[in-house]
Amino acid sequence: MFLTRTEYDRGVNTFSPEGRLFQVEYAIEAIKLGSTAIGLKTKKGVVLAVEKRITSPLLEPSSVEKIMEIDEHIGCAMSGLIADARTLVEHARVETQNHRFSYGEPMTVESTTQALCDLALRFGEGDEESMSRPFGVSLLIAGHDENGPSLYYTDPSGTFWQCNAKAIGSGSEGADSSLQEQYNKDLTLQEAETIALSILKQVMEEKVTPNNVDIAKVAPIYHLYTPSEVEAVISRL
Amino acid sequence: MFLTRTEYDRGVNTFSPEGRLFQVEYAIEAIKLGSTAIGLKTKKGVVLAVEKRITSPLLEPSSVEKIMEIDEHIGCAMSGLIADARTLVEHARVETQNHRFSYGEPMTVESTTQALCDLALRFGEGDEESMSRPFGVSLLIAGHDENGPSLYYTDPSGTFWQCNAKAIGSGSEGADSSLQEQYNKDLTLQEAETIALSILKQVMEEKVTPNNVDIAKVAPIYHLYTPSEVEAVISRL
Amino acid sequence: MFLTRTEYDRGVNTFSPEGRLFQVEYAIEAIKLGSTAIGLKTKKGVVLAVEKRITSPLLEPSSVEKIMEIDEHIGCAMSGLIADARTLVEHARVETQNHRFSYGEPMTVESTTQALCDLALRFGEGDEESMSRPFGVSLLIAGHDENGPSLYYTDPSGTFWQCNAKAIGSGSEGADSSLQEQYNKDLTLQEAETIALSILKQVMEEKVTPNNVDIAKVAPIYHLYTPSEVEAVISRL
Amino acid sequence: MFLTRTEYDRGVNTFSPEGRLFQVEYAIEAIKLGSTAIGLKTKKGVVLAVEKRITSPLLEPSSVEKIMEIDEHIGCAMSGLIADARTLVEHARVETQNHRFSYGEPMTVESTTQALCDLALRFGEGDEESMSRPFGVSLLIAGHDENGPSLYYTDPSGTFWQCNAKAIGSGSEGADSSLQEQYNKDLTLQEAETIALSILKQVMEEKVTPNNVDIAKVAPIYHLYTPSEVEAVISRL
Amino acid sequence: MFLTRTEYDRGVNTFSPEGRLFQVEYAIEAIKLGSTAIGLKTKKGVVLAVEKRITSPLLEPSSVEKIMEIDEHIGCAMSGLIADARTLVEHARVETQNHRFSYGEPMTVESTTQALCDLALRFGEGDEESMSRPFGVSLLIAGHDENGPSLYYTDPSGTFWQCNAKAIGSGSEGADSSLQEQYNKDLTLQEAETIALSILKQVMEEKVTPNNVDIAKVAPIYHLYTPSEVEAVISRL
Amino acid sequence: MFLTRTEYDRGVNTFSPEGRLFQVEYAIEAIKLGSTAIGLKTKKGVVLAVEKRITSPLLEPSSVEKIMEIDEHIGCAMSGLIADARTLVEHARVETQNHRFSYGEPMTVESTTQALCDLALRFGEGDEESMSRPFGVSLLIAGHDENGPSLYYTDPSGTFWQCNAKAIGSGSEGADSSLQEQYNKDLTLQEAETIALSILKQVMEEKVTPNNVDIAKVAPIYHLYTPSEVEAVISRL
Amino acid sequence: MFLTRTEYDRGVNTFSPEGRLFQVEYAIEAIKLGSTAIGLKTKKGVVLAVEKRITSPLLEPSSVEKIMEIDEHIGCAMSGLIADARTLVEHARVETQNHRFSYGEPMTVESTTQALCDLALRFGEGDEESMSRPFGVSLLIAGHDENGPSLYYTDPSGTFWQCNAKAIGSGSEGADSSLQEQYNKDLTLQEAETIALSILKQVMEEKVTPNNVDIAKVAPIYHLYTPSEVEAVISRL
Repeated sequence: MFLTRTEYDRGVNTFSPEGRLFQVEYAIEAIKLGSTAIGLKTKKGVVLAVEKRITSPLLEPSSVEKIMEIDEHIGCAMSGLIADARTLVEHARVETQNHRFSYGEPMTVESTTQALCDLALRFGEGDEESMSRPFGVSLLIAGHDENGPSLYYTDPSGTFWQCNAKAIGSGSEGADSSLQEQYNKDLTLQEAETIALSILKQVMEEKVTPNNVDIAKVAPIYHLYTPSEVEAVISRL
Repeated sequence: MFLTRTEYDRGVNTFSPEGRLFQVEYAIEAIKLGSTAIGLKTKKGVVLAVEKRITSPLLEPSSVEKIMEIDEHIGCAMSGLIADARTLVEHARVETQNHRFSYGEPMTVESTTQALCDLALRFGEGDEESMSRPFGVSLLIAGHDENGPSLYYTDPSGTFWQCNAKAIGSGSEGADSSLQEQYNKDLTLQEAETIALSILKQVMEEKVTPNNVDIAKVAPIYHLYTPSEVEAVISRL
Repeated sequence: MFLTRTEYDRGVNTFSPEGRLFQVEYAIEAIKLGSTAIGLKTKKGVVLAVEKRITSPLLEPSSVEKIMEIDEHIGCAMSGLIADARTLVEHARVETQNHRFSYGEPMTVESTTQALCDLALRFGEGDEESMSRPFGVSLLIAGHDENGPSLYYTDPSGTFWQCNAKAIGSGSEGADSSLQEQYNKDLTLQEAETIALSILKQVMEEKVTPNNVDIAKVAPIYHLYTPSEVEAVISRL
Repeated sequence: MFLTRTEYDRGVNTFSPEGRLFQVEYAIEAIKLGSTAIGLKTKKGVVLAVEKRITSPLLEPSSVEKIMEIDEHIGCAMSGLIADARTLVEHARVETQNHRFSYGEPMTVESTTQALCDLALRFGEGDEESMSRPFGVSLLIAGHDENGPSLYYTDPSGTFWQCNAKAIGSGSEGADSSLQEQYNKDLTLQEAETIALSILKQVMEEKVTPNNVDIAKVAPIYHLYTPSEVEAVISRL
Repeated sequence: MFLTRTEYDRGVNTFSPEGRLFQVEYAIEAIKLGSTAIGLKTKKGVVLAVEKRITSPLLEPSSVEKIMEIDEHIGCAMSGLIADARTLVEHARVETQNHRFSYGEPMTVESTTQALCDLALRFGEGDEESMSRPFGVSLLIAGHDENGPSLYYTDPSGTFWQCNAKAIGSGSEGADSSLQEQYNKDLTLQEAETIALSILKQVMEEKVTPNNVDIAKVAPIYHLYTPSEVEAVISRL
Repeated sequence: MFLTRTEYDRGVNTFSPEGRLFQVEYAIEAIKLGSTAIGLKTKKGVVLAVEKRITSPLLEPSSVEKIMEIDEHIGCAMSGLIADARTLVEHARVETQNHRFSYGEPMTVESTTQALCDLALRFGEGDEESMSRPFGVSLLIAGHDENGPSLYYTDPSGTFWQCNAKAIGSGSEGADSSLQEQYNKDLTLQEAETIALSILKQVMEEKVTPNNVDIAKVAPIYHLYTPSEVEAVISRL
Repeated sequence: MFLTRTEYDRGVNTFSPEGRLFQVEYAIEAIKLGSTAIGLKTKKGVVLAVEKRITSPLLEPSSVEKIMEIDEHIGCAMSGLIADARTLVEHARVETQNHRFSYGEPMTVESTTQALCDLALRFGEGDEESMSRPFGVSLLIAGHDENGPSLYYTDPSGTFWQCNAKAIGSGSEGADSSLQEQYNKDLTLQEAETIALSILKQVMEEKVTPNNVDIAKVAPIYHLYTPSEVEAVISRL
């Protein structure tokens, strides 16, 4: 009775007869091709950990940035198209700086996440700030504000959810199961680091080294771990 | 004599030979995929209740917002694409705030609903405020103004109706039948809460808990129930 | 020698080889799906009567508005897409208010009708005020000005005609025949009310009640009948 | 060697391999579906006569306007899409009024015709004043200026010609032959009226009455005949 | 190895694999459907002669303008779409007037021709002055400036050439051959008139009369021949 | 594995799976249809020579301009679509004049060439200065600045190279071979003239005359040879 | 289950069902057609070396620029479409100059690279600075700032990585393998020159001469080697 799905999936922003937006669903596929990222919220702060695919020994590992600072109190891990993520992060940085300038106080983590998603939702609209296609990236946004630590997960449709723990990217299915088994609300930051890295290790095809993973925390200030700090976490596994 | 419907349904805003706008009809399908929401009007105020699909135990239930405040005297429940709903709600918030600022009094519920629908109708027009496709969301708008309590129902075509009670989303068909059986104009607010939740319970596939439903009332001020208030309603079932 | 009609009917604003604009013709089809509306002009004023399709007993009948005031001296009945009609009516309200403000006197009924049709004609032009498709609605515009009472009929092509009596919507064919039999120029307003409602009754599939019809008159001021006034007309049938 | 014509006729403004613009040719077809209009120039002034199709006895004949005043000294008869004609006439009215205001004298008939045709030619150009398709209407423009009386004929391509007599619309072929037989330059206005109406009578399918024809003259001032003046001409046939 | 030409010829401004622009070539075809026009340069001035197709005896021959004045010292004959030519001529008139105003001297014939061709070249560019398709017209531009008399020929691609003599339109092939045989640089103006008209006579299907040809000269001032002046040339044949 | 090339070649600015831009390649084909042009650089200056196709003896040879001055110290020869070349040359003239005005010194030959190529590269971008398709023309740009004489070659992709000698157009393949055999850096200007013309002669189908070739030099000032100067070079062959 | 890839690859900016952007992937193919370029970072500075394809002995080798200066402390080597690279380099030059002007200090190498990639990412967005297709070019950006020497590699997707050594272009696969074997962090600049050129030599089809390779270093100032400096490196092989 209906056309097959393949007839509706190339219009950037068109509903199929079943009410689906295929270009958004395909952008979500782009994330399933991406490297794995994991976030865990504890009472003291949030931990982010990502796999970095170092395709050549001549590549500078620190230039493969998959965790970025948005503001002093907010950082994010990403999976999918990194150039798209940079655009979103840059937008969020401007928003948080403007907020500090206008109101003399940091932007809340939820408002920052909402600002990112507003931009993501408006793809295909032709205005100056938006893209002509969905952003092919998911973010784990870790932050700390007056409500304490929080972890948000965004997808290419511009939707976001608050989570206690979440994995994204090619290994997310297995990682999410492991998180549900191992997570509890009373984890210490150190326990969270260990869980994040041990789960990453399971889904990665090669040995974990300070070169191919990054770890960061927001507790309550954003901090990207140095290679020796990463090494310390690895040694605890 | 006519082409089959499938030839006309991809132009965003084109009539079929029978005078139908298929993209709007497909957006309406998107709502049939959404979670169920129910609204009931009583003489003292309006009750809204929604199902929340919590796909992972690590998701923060309070971040799955399917009931939102528009202004002190207006709230809405939604079903369909949540990111689209956020855009409409944000637009309505600006409109109601502007109205308060300009006229020193709250905007009426009908005017607020009309403002939302004006935006929804103008999809595909290419102006700055509108989307390039229909908004894939239905709203139940509950409010209280000089005319007393009122409940509106909007659909993606930008049309709205005033109702005594209404269900939207995947379980709306069964829920609407139950509402017609159980609704009468002299319900108390508490009776309305109980009916709303008992009908939601019928259409949900899992046990009702404070985590997977939200309840709100506008009587005459918008109030989203706390988990313990929801628990109290559940215990009355 | 020519292509079949189906090859030309999807361009929004393209002539077929026979010189036809199919999208306008399809929009006219949308009106044939609409509820029936009837207008009659008498020497004292104009009567409008419409069928309201109340799909659920929980719907508030008064929120299904198919007759609307444009200005104190002009009202209109509609059939087709109600959201489109609201846009046209809103445009006409602004025009008549601007006219009163600029010239200190009411806008004539013909000028108001012309202003509505100018907007309807410019679909597909891409300017800010127009739609990207034809308006899928017909209006019966009833008014009273220095030339006395008048009744206009508009269609989606932006054309209008002045009539003594006219029916639009799904039952218009039968209703127009009945009007030609029963209409004469010396009808009283009360006789016009009775004829309008008795013809509506013939084309409606259910019993006529104050809930499923609306009646209004412009004589010389717009007045929408209260349920008891409608009841009184029903009782005369 | 060439594609068939049907491959080139849907682009709004594209040449076929033979150098033809099919959308303009199809718009010309729209006029062949229109009612018949006739113009005759005499030494004292110009006479216009049109057929009016009154599809219902409840239609107000005077609201079917197929002859319109442009300025005191210019009027026009039309055939084709009436809503398109109204746009052209409105444009011409503004142009002639602006000319009077700027130069303190009436615009010549040729300049007025040229202004109409400039607008007609620019269809598909996307600027604010033009349409996205050709105007589906032909005009007979009658006027009187310092060069005496004149009659112009315009078509949808934006081309115009000056004529002594001309018929347009569905009956134009037969009417043009009759005009060539009966026209001479020394006709009186009264003889022109009689010829115009007798030719209209031949091409109309029903009896000629003051309700279904309109007559106007520009001699040297535009005047639309009253029903009794039309009756007088009918009685001379 | 290549697609056939027919696959590339509908894009307004797209190269075929052989490096051809088909829409321009099709516009050139439009000129081959046009009436014939001839220009000859002599030492004293330039003569232009055109065929006028008078399709009805009721048409005013003088309103079929195929020779137009651009400025006092420049005129042009045209073949193809007359409405397109009017746009070009109007553009050239503004340019020459602006030049006189800015520099206090007439614009040269070559600069005027260049200005016309700049406009013709920019079709499909979407700016305000240009058309969305090529101009379907060729011009013979006759002028007289500080360099003496000159004759230019333009085509729809926006290219122009200076000629001693040139024919355009449906009879151009035969006419060009005749011109090559009969032209020499020492022709008097009167001889040029005679040659132009005798060649036109060969390619026209009907008897030459002052009604169906126009003659003009620029020597050094533009002058369109009166019917009796045309008659005089005819009588010399 | 890939589609054939023909599926990718109609999008104005789209990569094929092999990373090619076919519309640019087709524009380059347009140049292979053009007349031949040759440039040679000597220590004293640069010589340009072009074939002119005089299709009719009535054409004014001097109006077939295939060598044009850009500024006092820069000239160019062209092959391909002459109207496109005029646009580029006009752009370069404005740029060089602006440079003189702003900096009080002539623009260098390389900067001028870069400015031309910037415009050529931006086809299909929709801004005001650019075309909607590639420019179908190649240029040989000869100039003399503080670095001495130089010769540049540009193609439709907006790329340019500096050469000692170069041929473009339909005869370029054979002419380039001859240039490689005969060119050396110590040629005198007169020897360069002779070589250029003798090579042109080989690739032309008709006898070389001052009517069908043009020669120019920039040494250090641009000079287009008079017919007698061309005759002198011919006589040396 | 999915369409073949060929159905999704012509939309400039559309996801395939697997989440891929084919136009970006095809642009990357354009680079595989390009000449080879190599970069190596040492502790004292960065060395760039490129192959230049000199298609004719009459071409001026120095005008085939494949290494360009961006600022005093930054240079880049390129492979792919040279005209696209020029646009990116020009953009980067403006950015670095603006930075010096605004902040009184040089722009860092990473910021410069990010600015280039922002422009590259925004293809297809329709704003003034961006292209309608991906830039078909990869860059090796060598620079020296407060963090010492650095080497960046960019691709058409707008992504960039920091490397110790990297090859791009048609010979990149073999060259990258050789770099991994021969590179170590303690190379002297001279050793880096020798390695770069010996690897280039392997992938080039002809003998290496100062005419067909270019070498540059940033140590800490950008310097393009003169032919004799290149000769010196060649002699060390």
